Amino acid sequence: MFLIARKALASAQNKAIHLSTREVHCLSSILVSPPLVSLDLPENWTPYSDHPPPVSFESEQKTVVIDGKVISEEIRTKISDEVRKMKNDIGKVPGLAVVLVGQQKDSQTYVRNKILACEETGIKSVLAELPEDCTEGEIMSVLAKFNEDTSVHGVLVQLPLPQHLDEAKILNMVRLEKDVDGFHPLNMGNLAMRGREPLFVSCTPKGCVELLIRSGVEIAGKNAVVIGRSNIVGLPMSLLLQRYDATVSTVHAFSKDPEQITREADIVVAAAGIPNLVRGSWLKPGAVVIDVGTCPVEDSSSEHGYRLVGDVCYEEALGVASAITPVPGGVGPMTIAMLLCNTLDAAKRIFL
Amino acid sequence: MFLIARKALASAQNKAIHLSTREVHCLSSILVSPPLVSLDLPENWTPYSDHPPPVSFESEQKTVVIDGKVISEEIRTKISDEVRKMKNDIGKVPGLAVVLVGQQKDSQTYVRNKILACEETGIKSVLAELPEDCTEGEIMSVLAKFNEDTSVHGVLVQLPLPQHLDEAKILNMVRLEKDVDGFHPLNMGNLAMRGREPLFVSCTPKGCVELLIRSGVEIAGKNAVVIGRSNIVGLPMSLLLQRYDATVSTVHAFSKDPEQITREADIVVAAAGIPNLVRGSWLKPGAVVIDVGTCPVEDSSSEHGYRLVGDVCYEEALGVASAITPVPGGVGPMTIAMLLCNTLDAAKRIFL
Repeated sequence: MFLIARKALASAQNKAIHLSTREVHCLSSILVSPPLVSLDLPENWTPYSDHPPPVSFESEQKTVVIDGKVISEEIRTKISDEVRKMKNDIGKVPGLAVVLVGQQKDSQTYVRNKILACEETGIKSVLAELPEDCTEGEIMSVLAKFNEDTSVHGVLVQLPLPQHLDEAKILNMVRLEKDVDGFHPLNMGNLAMRGREPLFVSCTPKGCVELLIRSGVEIAGKNAVVIGRSNIVGLPMSLLLQRYDATVSTVHAFSKDPEQITREADIVVAAAGIPNLVRGSWLKPGAVVIDVGTCPVEDSSSEHGYRLVGDVCYEEALGVASAITPVPGGVGPMTIAMLLCNTLDAAKRIFL
Repeated sequence: MFLIARKALASAQNKAIHLSTREVHCLSSILVSPPLVSLDLPENWTPYSDHPPPVSFESEQKTVVIDGKVISEEIRTKISDEVRKMKNDIGKVPGLAVVLVGQQKDSQTYVRNKILACEETGIKSVLAELPEDCTEGEIMSVLAKFNEDTSVHGVLVQLPLPQHLDEAKILNMVRLEKDVDGFHPLNMGNLAMRGREPLFVSCTPKGCVELLIRSGVEIAGKNAVVIGRSNIVGLPMSLLLQRYDATVSTVHAFSKDPEQITREADIVVAAAGIPNLVRGSWLKPGAVVIDVGTCPVEDSSSEHGYRLVGDVCYEEALGVASAITPVPGGVGPMTIAMLLCNTLDAAKRIFL
C-alpha cells in the first residue's frame, strides 16, 4: 500500500521512484519467494491448470528504481557485524585471497574494490599479483598455497586471464570449499541439479536474485529471460532463477527473436555486455529489469571522459518496466557484497 | 527433395510418414547442426539483427515419424563393429556394470534391456542386484569394487533408488571416468559451462539430440522448449540443446503458461511424465516434437493389459508437427543405444 501511495505521489513528478532503505525493508517483508540461503525445490509436478491467473500489469507504468547501493550497504553492515562478532568470540576473521594476473585496468579496478570492501567489513584480504606473461605453473603454485592456507577461506582468480593461460584448468584448481566465485564446475553442476546444494552461488547472479527478493518480486512461476549465457553471469543466473521456480528462457547470440522472447518476460536479466541492447520496445509493461551490463562509453562531458552504460536502454525502460536497476549503482555493488557474503559463509563452515 | 516427393505421395494416404534407414541417411547428409562428438561453442556474441529471417511453416503439415528403432539399430550395428574390431585388435572389450537395488518392475525391465543390448553388441556386462533394504554402505562397497575393476569401463546405478538411500551421495560415488549415465554433478557442470567438455552426456538427452541431427533438424538458433526439469532428462536436455545454440526455455510444474511458451517452440522435448500433457493446440505448426514420456496406461484390448503413452497427444500432433517421435519406438531405444555408445567411449579412452 505504501508503495502504491508513493507511486501516485510520484506520477505528477517523474517516471522513476527511488526506494529508501526503509521502503526496501517494507517491500521485503511481503516477499513470497524463498530466501537465498535455503533453496526450496519442490519435487512434485503439478499438472497444468487450464486457467492460470493472468499476470496483471498497469498500462501507465511507474518505474521503481532498485537501489543496489543502498541494499548492498545494508548487507555489508550485517557482514561487518558478523565478522566483528566472530573476531570477538573466537579471535578469528574470514580471509579472502585474490589472484590478479597482468595489468588490465578494469581488472585492477575490480580487484581494488574487492580488497577495499574486505577492509571495510573486517575481512582479511591478501592479493597475489602476477605478471601478464606468467606461466600456468606459477599461478598453480600460488593457488596451491592459498588452498592450504588455513587463514584463507575464499580464493578467487580475477577474470579474464591472458590468452595463453588455460582458464578452465586454473579455475578447477581452486579448492571447492574456497571457491567463493562459484565458478568450479562441481559447484555449477550442483547449482543446476535439483536436490543438490552448491557450496557457493556465483556472486553476480546471487546479487541479482537478492535484489529481486528484497524488492518484493515473486520469482516462482514468473517468466524470466536471461540475455547472455556466460559462465560467469548468464549461465548461473539461468540456473539460479530456475531453482527459484521461474520459467527461464536463455537468449544469446544465436537467438533469432530475442526481442519477442524478452517481451514475454516478467523478469528480464540483461547480461550480454552490449550497451543499450534491450530497448524499451523489448519490454512487457510491468516487467522487472535487472541490468548486469556495465560498458564504458565515451562521454566528453563526464569527468573521466567516459560513463558506464548498461545493456538496457534505461531512459526507454522508465515508464515501461515496473522496476529497474540503474547502471551504475544497481547490480555492481551487489556483486561485491555477495563476494563478502560467500567469504563469510566459507569461514563459518570452518569455524562453526 | 526426396522427402518432399515422399510427402506429396503420402498426403493422399495418411498424415504420418515413416522414414526408412535410407531416407534417414539422406536426411543426415544435409544436416547443418554440428555432430554430437564435437560440441562447437562460438565465443562471440553477434548483435541482434533487426530483420531475422522468418521461420517458414506449411499450413497443412505432413508429419514425419522419426523412427528411433531404426536409427538406434543403425547405431548399435556400428557399435558392434567397433567392439568386434577392438576385440580383434587388442583382445579386449568394453565392460558395463549395472547396480540394481530392489525389485521394482520397471527398473528390472530397463536393466534387463540394457544387459541384453550389451550382449548383442559384444559389450561385457555385469549386474549387481541388491535387496530393497540394503544399506548405503553395501552399495558403496559394490561401487568401490566396480570403480577399481579395470574390466569395467562404465558403471550405472539404476534409478530410482529406495527412499532410505541418499541418491546424490551414491551417484557421486561413481568414478567420473566411468559415469556413463552422466549424472555426476561434475559432468553436469561441464555440460552446462561453455568451453568445458563433460566426459559423458546423459543417455536420453544425447539420444534426443542424435535423433534431431539424424533427422536433418537444424538446432542452432531455433526456439526449443523442454517440458520437465528432472536431473535425468529435462535438465541435461536443456543444457545440451543450449550447447547446440538453441534458444532454450524450460517449462515445469510452476510454469503459468506452458501452453503459450510451447506454442512458440520450433523444437519441443516433452519429458514431464504426464500422459498426453501436450495437446495438438500446444504446438506451433511445423514444430519438431521429441516425446520422452512413457507412461503405462490401462488398456484391456492390449496383450499385457496396458499400453505405453507419451507426454504428447500423438494423434493430435499428427498434422501439426513436422516431425514426431512415437511412443514406444522413438526415444526409448535411443537411450539404450547411447548407453552402449558411452560405454564404448569410456573403454576407448582407456585403450586408445
